Amino acid sequence: MMNGLSQKIYLELPLPTEDDPRSDQQRILDSLAEAGMEERIHIPVHILRQLYPLLDNAKWKITVSLVWNGENWELIEIEEGDTTAQHYGLAVDLGSTTVVARLLDCNSGEILEEVSCFNKQIQWGTDILSRIFYCKDNKEKLEEVRRATVESISECMEKLDTSYSALSMVVAGNTTMIHFLLGMDAFCVFYTPHAVHADCPGFQLARDLDIPLKGYVYCYPSKSNYLGGDIISGMIDTELYKKDEISVFFDIGTNGELVIGNKEFLLCGAGAAGPALEGGVVRTGMRADVGAVDEVKIRDGNILVHVIGRPEEKYQIMCGKEGFQDSIKEIAKKSTENVEVTPQGICGSGIIDLIAELFLEGWIDIRGKLSPEKSLLIQQQDNQLCVEYAPGLYFYQKDIDEFIRTKSAAHTMVEIMLRESGLDLNQADRFYVAGAFGKHVSKESAITIGMYPDMDRAHIINAGNSSLEGAQKLLLNRSLLNDIDQILEEMVYIQFAEVEDFLELMVAAQALPHTDYKRYPTVMEKLKERQKGIKL
Amino acid sequence: MMNGLSQKIYLELPLPTEDDPRSDQQRILDSLAEAGMEERIHIPVHILRQLYPLLDNAKWKITVSLVWNGENWELIEIEEGDTTAQHYGLAVDLGSTTVVARLLDCNSGEILEEVSCFNKQIQWGTDILSRIFYCKDNKEKLEEVRRATVESISECMEKLDTSYSALSMVVAGNTTMIHFLLGMDAFCVFYTPHAVHADCPGFQLARDLDIPLKGYVYCYPSKSNYLGGDIISGMIDTELYKKDEISVFFDIGTNGELVIGNKEFLLCGAGAAGPALEGGVVRTGMRADVGAVDEVKIRDGNILVHVIGRPEEKYQIMCGKEGFQDSIKEIAKKSTENVEVTPQGICGSGIIDLIAELFLEGWIDIRGKLSPEKSLLIQQQDNQLCVEYAPGLYFYQKDIDEFIRTKSAAHTMVEIMLRESGLDLNQADRFYVAGAFGKHVSKESAITIGMYPDMDRAHIINAGNSSLEGAQKLLLNRSLLNDIDQILEEMVYIQFAEVEDFLELMVAAQALPHTDYKRYPTVMEKLKERQKGIKL
Repeated sequence: MMNGLSQKIYLELPLPTEDDPRSDQQRILDSLAEAGMEERIHIPVHILRQLYPLLDNAKWKITVSLVWNGENWELIEIEEGDTTAQHYGLAVDLGSTTVVARLLDCNSGEILEEVSCFNKQIQWGTDILSRIFYCKDNKEKLEEVRRATVESISECMEKLDTSYSALSMVVAGNTTMIHFLLGMDAFCVFYTPHAVHADCPGFQLARDLDIPLKGYVYCYPSKSNYLGGDIISGMIDTELYKKDEISVFFDIGTNGELVIGNKEFLLCGAGAAGPALEGGVVRTGMRADVGAVDEVKIRDGNILVHVIGRPEEKYQIMCGKEGFQDSIKEIAKKSTENVEVTPQGICGSGIIDLIAELFLEGWIDIRGKLSPEKSLLIQQQDNQLCVEYAPGLYFYQKDIDEFIRTKSAAHTMVEIMLRESGLDLNQADRFYVAGAFGKHVSKESAITIGMYPDMDRAHIINAGNSSLEGAQKLLLNRSLLNDIDQILEEMVYIQFAEVEDFLELMVAAQALPHTDYKRYPTVMEKLKERQKGIKL
Repeated sequence: MMNGLSQKIYLELPLPTEDDPRSDQQRILDSLAEAGMEERIHIPVHILRQLYPLLDNAKWKITVSLVWNGENWELIEIEEGDTTAQHYGLAVDLGSTTVVARLLDCNSGEILEEVSCFNKQIQWGTDILSRIFYCKDNKEKLEEVRRATVESISECMEKLDTSYSALSMVVAGNTTMIHFLLGMDAFCVFYTPHAVHADCPGFQLARDLDIPLKGYVYCYPSKSNYLGGDIISGMIDTELYKKDEISVFFDIGTNGELVIGNKEFLLCGAGAAGPALEGGVVRTGMRADVGAVDEVKIRDGNILVHVIGRPEEKYQIMCGKEGFQDSIKEIAKKSTENVEVTPQGICGSGIIDLIAELFLEGWIDIRGKLSPEKSLLIQQQDNQLCVEYAPGLYFYQKDIDEFIRTKSAAHTMVEIMLRESGLDLNQADRFYVAGAFGKHVSKESAITIGMYPDMDRAHIINAGNSSLEGAQKLLLNRSLLNDIDQILEEMVYIQFAEVEDFLELMVAAQALPHTDYKRYPTVMEKLKERQKGIKL
């Protein structure tokens, strides 16, 4: 039996007799005590009203549903007969772009279904800040945003098989998402001194949130404005707070969030990584959607790109060799004729691959500067150098510079956090990369450009949607509530802005892979291999 | 400071700064912890939504209202500035006839106002059973009855000064009243095996009960179908469960409820006392309302009666002496001309006085049989003897017989309970009489007829509306919740129906004051005094 946030217990109640005139309520509570329930159980009035004639009709054989409300159990449903086999719960990752909901069989822990939908807040902007400004200091608009958030979750619930009726829900999301879900102004998240309105909403009645669920909704608490419940949920998922070895937990998107630690300490921090990683700043950058270049290789002077929406192993070739210049367009034209999906732009994983490959091939130098003499694909457009990575799609020098700043910020955050822990960059035992970044970005490329440390690849772990996984784990194991308390208590938040040599370190990290290239021995090996005779 | 079911605490929150970016929520919780609040405090979402801009507007000086929900504190209101002086709560006695509500100053414990209104259930009958049958197995009618019950409480609340806003409410009522308040079918209360639906509703959200209050409503639990929350509340009020000496707690109306015990044991029982005590069966019986004879004396052969609605010391005289027979009507006519209120019937306290006086004067014998030779007021009407206690109002032999059965049942219950405790009738140290009976009935008369034991009058205590008093005490002192648990646990319910010699004892108690008249020495004294030369 799972020790989750809900329970279903089948009871065969003794029939009332003159010798046993206990109340229906007491009869149920006593039977629950016999079944091992030691805690007090609250029975809300709507259930008390159902006791008669339900118990009679059920011939005193009933199944009760109990939900944990943070302090005690609440009996929120009584069904006739034994329905313990139907015991469901919901885990939700409330992302700013996508909301993902999982329906769990709370008896077996099995995932019955996973659905997702876009976060309806997107109507007010893809970036969070524009949503925050939309409803700032405006009750009506805040209510619109709240409703859109709730409806995003409800839409997921509607997609799930309606024959399942969930008791409890765990939601993990960043601080802004949780503010919006609860109907709170989120300007505080971005505005100094970043004192948010609520960081530990805990268990709230689903009906108070307008979520169509019988029991309670638990929202993962946040540590600070930028270190949200999604990261705490990631801690629960990866269990790094329990391990002997020291792990790095790295969640990077528009913002970068970072936790480093083990069972003895936890440091955390967050910084604006810049939207470059999500293709926001790059001129032809785009979301990881159909038409986006998500994988790049340079082989024999040709750029091979994979485009989302095409078969996995089918690359489009951009020919970069001398003498073939005129035919590039022709090849490109042909290859686009052969497939359904035309490249529209480049997403984060594509960018990282592209920069890594440009560097390994020597098409850009250690500072990321394009060398036009290296390839015909390096051209001049709009008064700056650029590389044509797909037909008519250019990656500019400015894009590369912007991206290198982003990666150096990310690198520097990791470096500082490890230093605060008394460790060198390569001393972390595990490097967890959460979210889409961890899922899609090539480890090799990320190491090549110096975003990840140069470490044993097997110890770089794609943590997947650890926010959702942590929500699921808590739903199935309420003892993790204590772990959450412990995590929040132990976590020390490092203000990067207050680190004296942050800028200095960041400048050092703006080289590829790093000014101190000894930190990247395997990248040096690769460079040697790719560029025979290169001087390092 | 009172340790009641609610608290108001003034907080001067430290302003958020870059060095102190705690969330608003945490800032409040930390300040509460500093103020000595050790328990977890739940903040429901509607309060989280108010934090901004309320805290800013209040310049971070706020008063928070906390209510106890049975398990932890809930923060249910935030006000600007220091409003701790305005801290109110409600205690309610939900009687089947009258609902009484008290508004309490929860800081000082002072009663600010007490109001009452008729229980709107009366539209379905003055007796509870007819109300129960009205809505038995009919959801719509049950909902009508529930609404009428809630509206009775709301009406009281409306009568109170609206400038006071109460946080919590404690309701004490019998099992049927609480069933109706919560919207539960109450047929179970009267129907074998008397297993009621709920006996410990505990704390329920006021809004779930449709009661216009911010916080929670606590309903006193009941011990059994006939031993309701009003009695448990009476225990809290009289504190007999804490005393060394042994007390009897006696609440008699349509039903009689009884508790006997001290800090070491508690026995309780209940029985149908019969409506005779409320003037229900007696031919000219009536409720203690305007026009009811509520006090009777016999002096010099004349019957002196007091009528509710007349000045306190003004008696109406019924002349019973020989030779004055013809003038009785004349005198009566005159006296009714002199006052506004005409006697309409007789209520419980009048009946007890009347029977006691008839007995002391020898107008009835030890078995309650009228002796027509003793007074001209004893006449033959409708083929039976009767006494004309007021002009045209007769108290019949059948009424006397009925009443003596009632008093012997009450007496026997007390006797059995004391015997179960290993005590004789006169060994109780305190005799608490609750409710209207205790308030209005003459102690002397009740002893004379053998309803109360013959004991030190100073130890017969009018407990007043102990149901209301107990509600008030709990409202102001939540530690009494433990006492309530303890009382329920310790109480042993005696089934009178299972006492073998119940009938035998009852027959013995059907004499005035009792077959074993040695139990009533002071009554014997009075008899001697009134009837010089009587043989006892």
